[in-house]
Amino acid sequence: MSKAYRLLNHGPTVLVSAAHGGRRNVMAAAWNMPLDFNPPKVAVVIDKQAYTRTLIEASGEFVLSVPPVALLQQVMAAGSQSGRDLDQDKFEACGLQAASVSAVGAPLVEGCVAWLACKVLPEPEMAARYDLFLAEVVAAWADSSAFSDGRWHIERDEQRSLHHVAGGAFFTTGAMVQG
Amino acid sequence: MSKAYRLLNHGPTVLVSAAHGGRRNVMAAAWNMPLDFNPPKVAVVIDKQAYTRTLIEASGEFVLSVPPVALLQQVMAAGSQSGRDLDQDKFEACGLQAASVSAVGAPLVEGCVAWLACKVLPEPEMAARYDLFLAEVVAAWADSSAFSDGRWHIERDEQRSLHHVAGGAFFTTGAMVQG
Repeated sequence: MSKAYRLLNHGPTVLVSAAHGGRRNVMAAAWNMPLDFNPPKVAVVIDKQAYTRTLIEASGEFVLSVPPVALLQQVMAAGSQSGRDLDQDKFEACGLQAASVSAVGAPLVEGCVAWLACKVLPEPEMAARYDLFLAEVVAAWADSSAFSDGRWHIERDEQRSLHHVAGGAFFTTGAMVQG
Repeated sequence: MSKAYRLLNHGPTVLVSAAHGGRRNVMAAAWNMPLDFNPPKVAVVIDKQAYTRTLIEASGEFVLSVPPVALLQQVMAAGSQSGRDLDQDKFEACGLQAASVSAVGAPLVEGCVAWLACKVLPEPEMAARYDLFLAEVVAAWADSSAFSDGRWHIERDEQRSLHHVAGGAFFTTGAMVQG
């Protein structure tokens, strides 16, 4: 857990998922960052229109999943439509698989390379004024073929994380350098 | 200005610079993100120990500069020592060049690929509780050889931005993919 911040530290675009009252949803969010080391905290911007936000505000929980290049089209699908407007579950509409965890009621997104289960910190003014949600990370996991012992060791191109610029254009995570 | 968020949207580690009362300083910050489109806003986490924070709190202004790989060692230097402990100006200690702008009193860092001049939004509780600073971007610029017309078009490896993981290990910005 003391190394959970490293899952977001390089600035990837994430999928935000939440569930409440038998409904679940997922969205894409480039505007996220670590907020503290230990206990780990995160900050993420979630628009007032987002159906995922409704579920987060009702449940007080969400999961951040770090999608790899292999999920590029699914991330695009998650980022370009609202669960509010769909007749079907948005995971299914986007070709994404959800999985349950015990730490929070929100589902995680299968096929991602890292996951952070989060509980919202009560800062309603930040949400109202800036669409900003602060949360404590209560559990975190990573695909051990991409991240283990607190270090990323991405070997296959399809495991690289995505860094959205605009309009569906993403940088992928490139080579590592040591300062 | 409506595209200023694109300078940070892909999650680069930035240099934060500030000045007040004839003193100036610079630090590295991986924990930053866009907060709004128009007017553009940003969020950045700045530790209570940081001398740059003292200057930001006194002046209400800072600049975020996006350093390229070419400045890797200077970014490391900026991230591994405090201006509070130095006998000399930290820009000089790190081998960085400062430049003045009219938009804010804080200097920008030469040799970077993008710059955002920011005025702090008055949210003192966020700074006190989370070391979190929210700010409005009042001017933004980019190196036109790397970013123009609202688009990144990085061609040379040394222009790639840096994405800190931990302990001086950085991912560099990789290939672009279109979803």
